[in-house]
Amino acid sequence: MHNDEIIDLGNVQLDAGRKERCGFPEVIYGEGKDAETIAKILRSFAEEKTDALATRIDADKAEYLQNVFKTSEHTVFHNPLARTLRLIPQGCKQRQPQGKVAVVSAGTSDAPVAEEACETARWMGAETILIQDAGVAGPQRLLAKLPVLQDADAVIVVAGMEGALPSVVGGYVSCPVIAVPTSVGYGANFGGLAALLGMLNSCAANVAVVNIDAGFKAGYVAGLIAQKTKNE
Amino acid sequence: MHNDEIIDLGNVQLDAGRKERCGFPEVIYGEGKDAETIAKILRSFAEEKTDALATRIDADKAEYLQNVFKTSEHTVFHNPLARTLRLIPQGCKQRQPQGKVAVVSAGTSDAPVAEEACETARWMGAETILIQDAGVAGPQRLLAKLPVLQDADAVIVVAGMEGALPSVVGGYVSCPVIAVPTSVGYGANFGGLAALLGMLNSCAANVAVVNIDAGFKAGYVAGLIAQKTKNE
Amino acid sequence: MHNDEIIDLGNVQLDAGRKERCGFPEVIYGEGKDAETIAKILRSFAEEKTDALATRIDADKAEYLQNVFKTSEHTVFHNPLARTLRLIPQGCKQRQPQGKVAVVSAGTSDAPVAEEACETARWMGAETILIQDAGVAGPQRLLAKLPVLQDADAVIVVAGMEGALPSVVGGYVSCPVIAVPTSVGYGANFGGLAALLGMLNSCAANVAVVNIDAGFKAGYVAGLIAQKTKNE
Amino acid sequence: MHNDEIIDLGNVQLDAGRKERCGFPEVIYGEGKDAETIAKILRSFAEEKTDALATRIDADKAEYLQNVFKTSEHTVFHNPLARTLRLIPQGCKQRQPQGKVAVVSAGTSDAPVAEEACETARWMGAETILIQDAGVAGPQRLLAKLPVLQDADAVIVVAGMEGALPSVVGGYVSCPVIAVPTSVGYGANFGGLAALLGMLNSCAANVAVVNIDAGFKAGYVAGLIAQKTKNE
Amino acid sequence: MHNDEIIDLGNVQLDAGRKERCGFPEVIYGEGKDAETIAKILRSFAEEKTDALATRIDADKAEYLQNVFKTSEHTVFHNPLARTLRLIPQGCKQRQPQGKVAVVSAGTSDAPVAEEACETARWMGAETILIQDAGVAGPQRLLAKLPVLQDADAVIVVAGMEGALPSVVGGYVSCPVIAVPTSVGYGANFGGLAALLGMLNSCAANVAVVNIDAGFKAGYVAGLIAQKTKNE
Amino acid sequence: MHNDEIIDLGNVQLDAGRKERCGFPEVIYGEGKDAETIAKILRSFAEEKTDALATRIDADKAEYLQNVFKTSEHTVFHNPLARTLRLIPQGCKQRQPQGKVAVVSAGTSDAPVAEEACETARWMGAETILIQDAGVAGPQRLLAKLPVLQDADAVIVVAGMEGALPSVVGGYVSCPVIAVPTSVGYGANFGGLAALLGMLNSCAANVAVVNIDAGFKAGYVAGLIAQKTKNE
Amino acid sequence: MHNDEIIDLGNVQLDAGRKERCGFPEVIYGEGKDAETIAKILRSFAEEKTDALATRIDADKAEYLQNVFKTSEHTVFHNPLARTLRLIPQGCKQRQPQGKVAVVSAGTSDAPVAEEACETARWMGAETILIQDAGVAGPQRLLAKLPVLQDADAVIVVAGMEGALPSVVGGYVSCPVIAVPTSVGYGANFGGLAALLGMLNSCAANVAVVNIDAGFKAGYVAGLIAQKTKNE
Amino acid sequence: MHNDEIIDLGNVQLDAGRKERCGFPEVIYGEGKDAETIAKILRSFAEEKTDALATRIDADKAEYLQNVFKTSEHTVFHNPLARTLRLIPQGCKQRQPQGKVAVVSAGTSDAPVAEEACETARWMGAETILIQDAGVAGPQRLLAKLPVLQDADAVIVVAGMEGALPSVVGGYVSCPVIAVPTSVGYGANFGGLAALLGMLNSCAANVAVVNIDAGFKAGYVAGLIAQKTKNE
Repeated sequence: MHNDEIIDLGNVQLDAGRKERCGFPEVIYGEGKDAETIAKILRSFAEEKTDALATRIDADKAEYLQNVFKTSEHTVFHNPLARTLRLIPQGCKQRQPQGKVAVVSAGTSDAPVAEEACETARWMGAETILIQDAGVAGPQRLLAKLPVLQDADAVIVVAGMEGALPSVVGGYVSCPVIAVPTSVGYGANFGGLAALLGMLNSCAANVAVVNIDAGFKAGYVAGLIAQKTKNE
Repeated sequence: MHNDEIIDLGNVQLDAGRKERCGFPEVIYGEGKDAETIAKILRSFAEEKTDALATRIDADKAEYLQNVFKTSEHTVFHNPLARTLRLIPQGCKQRQPQGKVAVVSAGTSDAPVAEEACETARWMGAETILIQDAGVAGPQRLLAKLPVLQDADAVIVVAGMEGALPSVVGGYVSCPVIAVPTSVGYGANFGGLAALLGMLNSCAANVAVVNIDAGFKAGYVAGLIAQKTKNE
Repeated sequence: MHNDEIIDLGNVQLDAGRKERCGFPEVIYGEGKDAETIAKILRSFAEEKTDALATRIDADKAEYLQNVFKTSEHTVFHNPLARTLRLIPQGCKQRQPQGKVAVVSAGTSDAPVAEEACETARWMGAETILIQDAGVAGPQRLLAKLPVLQDADAVIVVAGMEGALPSVVGGYVSCPVIAVPTSVGYGANFGGLAALLGMLNSCAANVAVVNIDAGFKAGYVAGLIAQKTKNE
Repeated sequence: MHNDEIIDLGNVQLDAGRKERCGFPEVIYGEGKDAETIAKILRSFAEEKTDALATRIDADKAEYLQNVFKTSEHTVFHNPLARTLRLIPQGCKQRQPQGKVAVVSAGTSDAPVAEEACETARWMGAETILIQDAGVAGPQRLLAKLPVLQDADAVIVVAGMEGALPSVVGGYVSCPVIAVPTSVGYGANFGGLAALLGMLNSCAANVAVVNIDAGFKAGYVAGLIAQKTKNE
Repeated sequence: MHNDEIIDLGNVQLDAGRKERCGFPEVIYGEGKDAETIAKILRSFAEEKTDALATRIDADKAEYLQNVFKTSEHTVFHNPLARTLRLIPQGCKQRQPQGKVAVVSAGTSDAPVAEEACETARWMGAETILIQDAGVAGPQRLLAKLPVLQDADAVIVVAGMEGALPSVVGGYVSCPVIAVPTSVGYGANFGGLAALLGMLNSCAANVAVVNIDAGFKAGYVAGLIAQKTKNE
Repeated sequence: MHNDEIIDLGNVQLDAGRKERCGFPEVIYGEGKDAETIAKILRSFAEEKTDALATRIDADKAEYLQNVFKTSEHTVFHNPLARTLRLIPQGCKQRQPQGKVAVVSAGTSDAPVAEEACETARWMGAETILIQDAGVAGPQRLLAKLPVLQDADAVIVVAGMEGALPSVVGGYVSCPVIAVPTSVGYGANFGGLAALLGMLNSCAANVAVVNIDAGFKAGYVAGLIAQKTKNE
Repeated sequence: MHNDEIIDLGNVQLDAGRKERCGFPEVIYGEGKDAETIAKILRSFAEEKTDALATRIDADKAEYLQNVFKTSEHTVFHNPLARTLRLIPQGCKQRQPQGKVAVVSAGTSDAPVAEEACETARWMGAETILIQDAGVAGPQRLLAKLPVLQDADAVIVVAGMEGALPSVVGGYVSCPVIAVPTSVGYGANFGGLAALLGMLNSCAANVAVVNIDAGFKAGYVAGLIAQKTKNE
Repeated sequence: MHNDEIIDLGNVQLDAGRKERCGFPEVIYGEGKDAETIAKILRSFAEEKTDALATRIDADKAEYLQNVFKTSEHTVFHNPLARTLRLIPQGCKQRQPQGKVAVVSAGTSDAPVAEEACETARWMGAETILIQDAGVAGPQRLLAKLPVLQDADAVIVVAGMEGALPSVVGGYVSCPVIAVPTSVGYGANFGGLAALLGMLNSCAANVAVVNIDAGFKAGYVAGLIAQKTKNE
């Protein structure tokens, strides 16, 4: 498959060269696409024996897709909390496990975003560890988990409200921290803006930021970093 | 002096009843007032044997005021970092020391605001302790000072950038935390907005917030809280 | 119970040391947690004979929780307007009443937030007084209540729209004023932003601010201040 | 002079019909115009025997204009605080005094805007009264002036910071209140935005708002209202 | 009735002195009040033989109130487009008609706000004229109505989108223009912010602004101006 | 028909002179108008033998309008994705095809806006080409279509998220690029604001921008540009 | 010269293929480039016998560049108001005049932006007409110029403050209107944001918008449109 | 040196354990610190034989520091464009070169930020390549450099204006892209906000973002990623 090939599915132009150019095939963003379109894309991936990941798959679409692919020669994994769906065709070559990604969430409401990050990094072949409900208001909860964090190749920190957790984590680890602001909170949170600004202004030098609620992106960037460690 | 009396100084209407109604006399906000006007107000306070505090006094105004009052029967204290000036008339009744206020600043650039908070609380009769440069990126700096913080009646936390420090302090103390966002930072800090939103969205329940760079207000509210402990 | 102990409830890490560190046990924020999780946390508190407070409990969750705990040896108080729920286990040691908190609301629509503030301060042991519908457009309504306000250890002012009430109240009292902007209003109110900015820029020195609609936080900070008066 | 006549001064097109259509001739906005251009416009007005008002005239332009017109048959009034300049040509028909406009300012820093409002209303023929430094933090200062306010045909309220004063004034008077937010303040004031939003969200029904620092506009609208009373 | 009397209805404190202080009794803002509370307030007004106006009354509340008051000795007027309801008790003294208010709306979607303005001005005794769908894109529609506008004592201009209409109207009339931005529009309209900013920055000197969608306030201010003309 | 004629339909004032002044008759904006009003306007156009276009016609209104006009001597075209409806009366003079407009969309979710742009340009007589799903993340998709783009008289680029596509397209073509930000995206997209700002700040000199989701406006401006080529 | 050729000037990579791809060579944006760098780029253009345009050239850079090129075989045009500089090498082939662009400015302060637009369109070969000071507050000023506007192939409207002028112009012409918001104004103008939002929300269908103060871009897009008319 | 040791320099608390915890010693942020304080910190590092990096060092501070350290046994490197200063004490152990970081800037004005990123990554031991002036408007400039980018372990993209470049780069590489928005631009750029939002909303999955103008942070995160490759 040439690195600038396009698979024309009518209203969708699949970037078939992505895997060669970027290391991983296109991930399907489910929002704003109907279930039929998603199925069409997944089928196209399956024909290439590619392990496909789809994000923002709500319950209805997930049910539809599980029905479409259940009788066929694929394995379908749906994580309802993460709203992700993976389609692993029979005979698809599995990626070698490589690198460790730790995902830390500040509160229980941040779980869906944290799970999306986990699923993405896992699909890319990283070993993932999820540490939940470790917000700064109860500081000992984080301190108890430092050894796990310090062992990771990349740490993802998912937090809403004031978004202070990445700064605190950043002060304890020597790997990059990918911060994900969430829209969790109320009042002057302004849909995640408060957490986003907090993370962008982090005084910790090792913190980079992705979009509000962008668990997928954090998982993807962390997965790429974890890749770097494969030959260790 | 009746509690709704006004002293008319032409373009300024002094609220002479403030001390009776609110416990402390009016504090003079120096910005936007010329040195002559400030001197006129200070003289009016001195005549009442009142220990006066003026804030936002820049170097020029401070020099002018020190000259005006140096030959007279007053003591003038000018804190150039805090930009405050106190005028203590001879025979003025000093307040009894009461309560402890701890002021924590995140970085060296936050010093002017932290100093303004200290001067205000001190003028109100509180014992003040200043802990500088204790931001979250070097967490052990804060932990080393916890005993001091846990002994205070009110803690003021002054921080710019992401404004995460009040949340962290809030998780360790049992008194109110008054958070002051500063305009220190750059880029998406937006003049202190990032720190302000962070502090308003703090997950710590004991954190209240004042305006950006409002060291005076934080000192005042903390000073009032410290007052409560006078009979202990 | 050690001050950095954690109770691991799976997706929730209870900060069991909070009471020792911060004076009061964790308050359960009900939004974004399902009823089962809240029940699990409440049960854990009950086993410790701790008087628990949960906020942002909607009608459905409240009904569920009242059913779960009605046959057991607890008292359940649900305030539907405040959306709070208290679980008082038999044999739980009640806090001694201490200090007075006055809560003033500007309009009838601010009632839920004002009630949440009251419930919180009350849970902390403060005597609370609620003054409703005292907005600045009808100034005599506030003036009639001044003696009550001037007797309080802390005053909470809850207001939407332009958020002018805390400044006015601040000019009449000698204790800290905790201002709560509400999202009540329309148009250029921008979900409470107008009131929030108004309160942050208050010309009254004794006004500190909490997040939009954060009745709980205002109650908590006021409750801490009221604590200071216990030995008077 | 026909109501859609234009006087072409090169880079300026004077709206010569404004007086007929709108009751008053064009007022010259001095900012962004050089002194020569302003002189050219003033001369054109003088030739029509029109009493001209120019706003936003800084010290340098004022000096230039006073020099230009001093030897001629005009009277030049320059108010340096208001930054206004009036040119009254000899033989110009003076407007009959009509109506009363009260201007209230919250603090001493609001004086320039309040003065601009006064000068404008005065130019339009209204009797003006200026009440300075009557902000809400010292409530008795306003109450002392109520009789004056209640006697006015229109009240202009000029305030920075939280902009609460118009709401309070609005609750005491039966005429329209024109609120002018000023950029006075700091921190989360955001150049007058806080005061602007506060005034727009005023709970008082009789408050309309003009742009930040727009003393001229407030004076103009109030002057038009005062006109209505001329036959009383 | 004394000018600072309060009628205590439990959760509502009626400002009974408003009529004496401000010329008109309190107008009931229906949003955020339940129908029972509104009925209680209306009844209190009816007992005083006061012609009451309630705004933001949705269809359900209107039906409830019409039922409550239909068998009694009152007249109930409900304008469903304006969402206003008037209760005129038998024997209530009607206001003398005085002054003319013209209301201009830019588009058909602005009708509810324009109607609310009309109803308010009418309740205050003004003669009102409504000119609909006169936006700037079809300029001749406005020009055709100039005589009506030029005859009014106050003009209310209601517009969404870019909010350009008040500036254009302002250039043709000699009375105050009260501009009401509406939340009509899409995209970068940001809920009426675009129209609001446009109107605040109007180059026409005679334009004052009220809150987004605040038809009531515009009607009230215009009604007060119309009052001034009563003795002509 | 004179160029400032108005057709008065009660609450709608049809700008009958628009075609003469602006080249095309008024397009009916369906949002905020009920189906009956739209039918009334369409009928008025049909009587003038004018090919009418209505936008923002949802499914219900479309069904109503198709029923109203199905038995009559008109052709009705409804594009449900674009939410447009065209009514072509029998005997209406069709416009001559003139000029080419290429519409490029970044992702499948941008389709409704892109379709609205197409329908508008087509109604104006332009030949339109739609290139879908050509976002910058898969750059070869765009490169493959360059010949089509370089042949157009105007290119419309529809994109959400970061809105980078117009800048990239602008670097390859010699005609004007009309950029349409869409509200597609999440998090810090803020309803299309991110894409809007991106497009306004485009480093490509040939990019002009219309409102968020304003497919109609982009189609209209592009259609006008295409008109210019008619005599080639 | 091939269409993807690059001329490497060290810190600048000249896009030598721009003329072939986009119809016109790169325009030099002077801000943030030092005079030496600009001279280096101009010289490179001169060697290709290309008529070069540079924008945002302040007085100092202009003087430097005029000195550099005065003794050589070029013509240098500097427009200090527009801050543009053109370098026409001897023997450079002049573009054929084609199409008409009308530039309308609302006020005298908008002149620099309007001039930049004119210079750009003129460089591209369009005939340009500048109509100054035609803002909506004096409506007859615009009406007097309608014949000129209606004769243009593209109209550029430059306005600050509320930005209403493009909507009004748009209602009178049949060609595209390119609207340029300027940062002229004060208070809630927010550096041109008010005008920008107003123009984006214009109710006129033929209005597209460029960045605040982007006279160059407006001139460029209008120049491209004017190109379309060359064979008429 | 223990990992939570603090070196107390009076107003600065040096985090001496940072190197052990985070892999690299603290970097000195020069803004808001006076030259004496910076010298004091540098001396402290030198005593530990640590290669120190200071950022945001303006010309005056750089001159002062070069003077302070020139006679001593150190090497001082000052990059005036990057505003960085390195102090390498004699006998300091140099880091082994490891990994490659490519830095791409969109325009010449982005150079200072790009240089700061380079200096930081270089200090951390990465090989750095700087590709300047490769913005999207001249697409072939980027395409010519793809082999260099595809060989890097991390790519930093520095861009102002619309911030589109990271998305385009992201589509061609398989490593993480660290995007740095700059405050370069004008008008609706809003100090870098446009570029920041564009980058956060990037459709490329491998893009993470740091604060506006935060070249240091981007260099630091990229340097950490490059570290991962050391054993390859």
